[in-house]
Amino acid sequence: MENGSELEKWGFRGNEKLSAALASAVTVRGILMKLFESLSKDDPRPTVPLGHGDPSAFPCFRTAAVAEDAIVDAVRSAKYNGYAPSVGILPARRAIADYLSRDLPYALSPDDVHVTIGCIQAIEVTMAVLARPGANILLPRPGFPYYESRAAAINLEVRHFDLNPEKGWEVDLESIEALADENTVAMVIINPGNPCGTVYTHQHLKKIAETARKLGILVVADEVYHHLTFGSNPFVPMGAFGSIVPVITLGSISKRWIVPGWRLGWIVTNDPNGILRKLGVVECITSYLNMAADPPTFMQGAVPHMLEKTGEDFFAKVIDILREAAGICYDRIEEIPCITCPNKPEGSMFVMAKLNVSLLEDINDDMEFCLKLAKEESVIVLPGVAVGMENWLRITFGIDPSSLEDGFGRIKAFCERHAKKQ
Amino acid sequence: MENGSELEKWGFRGNEKLSAALASAVTVRGILMKLFESLSKDDPRPTVPLGHGDPSAFPCFRTAAVAEDAIVDAVRSAKYNGYAPSVGILPARRAIADYLSRDLPYALSPDDVHVTIGCIQAIEVTMAVLARPGANILLPRPGFPYYESRAAAINLEVRHFDLNPEKGWEVDLESIEALADENTVAMVIINPGNPCGTVYTHQHLKKIAETARKLGILVVADEVYHHLTFGSNPFVPMGAFGSIVPVITLGSISKRWIVPGWRLGWIVTNDPNGILRKLGVVECITSYLNMAADPPTFMQGAVPHMLEKTGEDFFAKVIDILREAAGICYDRIEEIPCITCPNKPEGSMFVMAKLNVSLLEDINDDMEFCLKLAKEESVIVLPGVAVGMENWLRITFGIDPSSLEDGFGRIKAFCERHAKKQ
Repeated sequence: MENGSELEKWGFRGNEKLSAALASAVTVRGILMKLFESLSKDDPRPTVPLGHGDPSAFPCFRTAAVAEDAIVDAVRSAKYNGYAPSVGILPARRAIADYLSRDLPYALSPDDVHVTIGCIQAIEVTMAVLARPGANILLPRPGFPYYESRAAAINLEVRHFDLNPEKGWEVDLESIEALADENTVAMVIINPGNPCGTVYTHQHLKKIAETARKLGILVVADEVYHHLTFGSNPFVPMGAFGSIVPVITLGSISKRWIVPGWRLGWIVTNDPNGILRKLGVVECITSYLNMAADPPTFMQGAVPHMLEKTGEDFFAKVIDILREAAGICYDRIEEIPCITCPNKPEGSMFVMAKLNVSLLEDINDDMEFCLKLAKEESVIVLPGVAVGMENWLRITFGIDPSSLEDGFGRIKAFCERHAKKQ
Repeated sequence: MENGSELEKWGFRGNEKLSAALASAVTVRGILMKLFESLSKDDPRPTVPLGHGDPSAFPCFRTAAVAEDAIVDAVRSAKYNGYAPSVGILPARRAIADYLSRDLPYALSPDDVHVTIGCIQAIEVTMAVLARPGANILLPRPGFPYYESRAAAINLEVRHFDLNPEKGWEVDLESIEALADENTVAMVIINPGNPCGTVYTHQHLKKIAETARKLGILVVADEVYHHLTFGSNPFVPMGAFGSIVPVITLGSISKRWIVPGWRLGWIVTNDPNGILRKLGVVECITSYLNMAADPPTFMQGAVPHMLEKTGEDFFAKVIDILREAAGICYDRIEEIPCITCPNKPEGSMFVMAKLNVSLLEDINDDMEFCLKLAKEESVIVLPGVAVGMENWLRITFGIDPSSLEDGFGRIKAFCERHAKKQ
C-alpha cells in the first residue's frame, strides 16, 4: 500500500463536488441501508421488511408465468441480441402506447413513448429535460425523494407543495398557485400515491390539470403504481386530461407485475394538442436518450407479449392480497396508541402513519424510532423524514399478510416497551 | 393543435442548453442514422452493414446456448425479480472478479467490481467521477466518440493524443508527455483497438503504464473487446500493470459473447496499491451508481453461470470467423486503389482504411464517400470523421464472411465508377 506522501504524486481524485452533491442526497436506499446495518445479528426471528416498495421476494407476489415466458421466448428467439434504437424498439413502444390508451379518451402513438430503464431513468431524463437554467419544479410533500436528489444533481430548484392528510392527502391547490412563478416549469403528481396510499378522484385530477394550465406549467404524472388500487376510487391516468394540460407520464412494469428488478419503464407524452413537441420537449427527451444507457433489447422484445397476455386473474390476485394487507395495516395501527393513520390506504403499497413521540419514553424522533425498532425487533420501517415528513412513518403493506401481522405484533410490543409511564 | 400565440402561455421548454450540448455531440449512432436514411429504397439487394460493432444479427455469430440458458434459468428461478444493490449483486461481482483475475498477476476482489448497464454506462460513470472542476482527460485519436460526447456533457476538457498508423497504431508516448499538465487526470486506452483493430504488446502497455505513472495520471482501459484477438499478439489486460499505475478497466459481455443488446458491463478498479480507494475514486463511483439506473437483477443473476460455463469452443468459433473476415477485409482493400490499410487487423471487429479522394472524380471527403456508397450500393461504412480521422474509413468485419465479400464487391464497383479518368 502506498502511504500519504506517495499519494501526492497522483493528479486525480474522486470528483469532490459530485461526491458532495450525491452524499447530500437523501435516498430511500441510503436510509434503508442504515436501518439494515442496525439490525441485531442475535435476533433469531426473520427480519420483517416494511420499508421497501418491492414485494417480489414473497411467494404470494410471484409475477405472472406469462411475463416470465415473454422474456424466455425473447431470449430464445435470438432476435434481440443486438443494439436497440435509443428510444426503444418499435414493437415495445407500440405495445406500451396501446396498453396505456385503454384508459385514455384518445389513442397514444408509438412516437409518444420512450422506453427507459425502469421509472428511475424516466425520472432522471424528465428532470434533466425540464431543467433549463433558472427553472424550478413543484414537488409533493410527502413524496419520493429521488426527485429531490436528481434535482440537486442538476441544479434544478425545488419548491414543495403540501399534501393534506386532513383531506385524503389531496394537493393543496391554493398553495400551488402561491408557489409558482414565471420560472416554474412543472408539478409532479404521484398517483396512486407513494407514500400516502391515496388514489385521487377524477374530479381532483381535473382540478390539478386546470390549475397547471392556469399557471402555464406541465404535469409530470408518476404512475409507477398504476392500477394498484383496491378502494372506492378507480385509477384515472393524468393523461386523461392531456387536452387541458400537457402531461408527461412516467411508469413501469415494476409494481403492477411485481418485478422491480426487471428495470423496464417508460416516458409517455400525453399531449393531444402537440404542445410538448412544438416546445422542443420531445426532441430533448430523444436527444438525452441518444446518449444514455438503455434496457436490454430482449426485455423490450418481451414487452408486447407481457402487456397483451397477462391475465386479469394475476392482477386480481395481487389486488386481493394488497387489499387484505392494507386492511391489516390500518387496523393494527389503530391498536397502537403512539401511531395514527389519517386515511385508510386505497392504492400503491404504502401508508403514512403519524408518530406521537410525546407518548414515548426514550425516543425523540422518527429516525430514532426506526433505528431502535430495527435493532430491537428486526422490523424495518422508513422514517417519514426520508419522504419529507418528520415524525411520520412510511409503512409498506406490500408483503405477505402473515408477515405483516408478525411485524405489527413486534411494533406493538416495541411501542408498549418504550411508552411513557403514566 | 394549438397555434403560436397559444403556445406562449406555457412556461416550460425543452432544455435548450442540454439540447445544444447533446446535438453537438458526434455519435456513431447519429452518423449511422444519417447513412441509413440515405439508403435507396429501390435497391433490391440487402444492405451490407459495415459500420457497426454489432454482429449479433448474423446466424454464424449467434451467442452461446449456455449464455441464453443462464438468463432463462435466472428468470425461471424467480430469485431475481427484486431490486439489486446499486453496485450489483455479490455473486455477479464475484464472478466478474474471478473471470478477470484469470489474466492478472493478482486476484481482484468483488469490491473492485461495479456492475453497469453495458460499457456505455461504465464510460458515463468513469468520466463523471474523474471530472472535477478544471480537470482534463487524454483521449486517443482515432477513438470512440462517446468519450468526447460524455466529456462535452459534463464540461470535462478533452486533449487528444494520436495513434500512429505507421507504427501499428501505437500510442505516441512523447506526445502524451507534451499534452499532460497538472490538471490531467487520466488517459484512455482502448485495447483491443476500436477503431484500429490493433492489439497492443505487453511491452507497449507497460510503457503506457510507466508514462502514466510518471505523469501522475491513471489509465482508463476500455477493454470491451477483450479476448477478441486473432493475430500474433495475445490480449494483455492493462490491469496487469496495476502495481505501476492505478487502472480503471471498463468492459462488458457485449462483444465477446456477441450480445451488445444484453447491456451488462462493469467498472473494475485494478489497484493493488489501494490508491483509487484512498483518493476517493471508488467511493465516488459507488455514490454515482447509488443514483443511477442499473441492469436487470436477473441479468446479474445470470452472470456467474455465463462467465463460468461458456465453453472455449464458442469463443474459438467466433475468433475463427473474425480471423477469416479480417483477412478478407485486408485483402479486398488491397485491390481497391483509392483505399489503403496500413495494418492488418489483429483484434476487435474494425479496421481503419485511408481514403485517397484525389483518385476520385466527384467525391470530396469521407462523409460524402459514405453517403454516396450507402445510396448507390446499399453498403454502410463509417466515415473516419466520426472517430476523429477525416478521410479515413472505419470498416467492420464483424459480419459473416460471405456478406463481407458481397460488400467489398460493391465498394470496389463504386470506387471504379467514381475513379478519376486517367
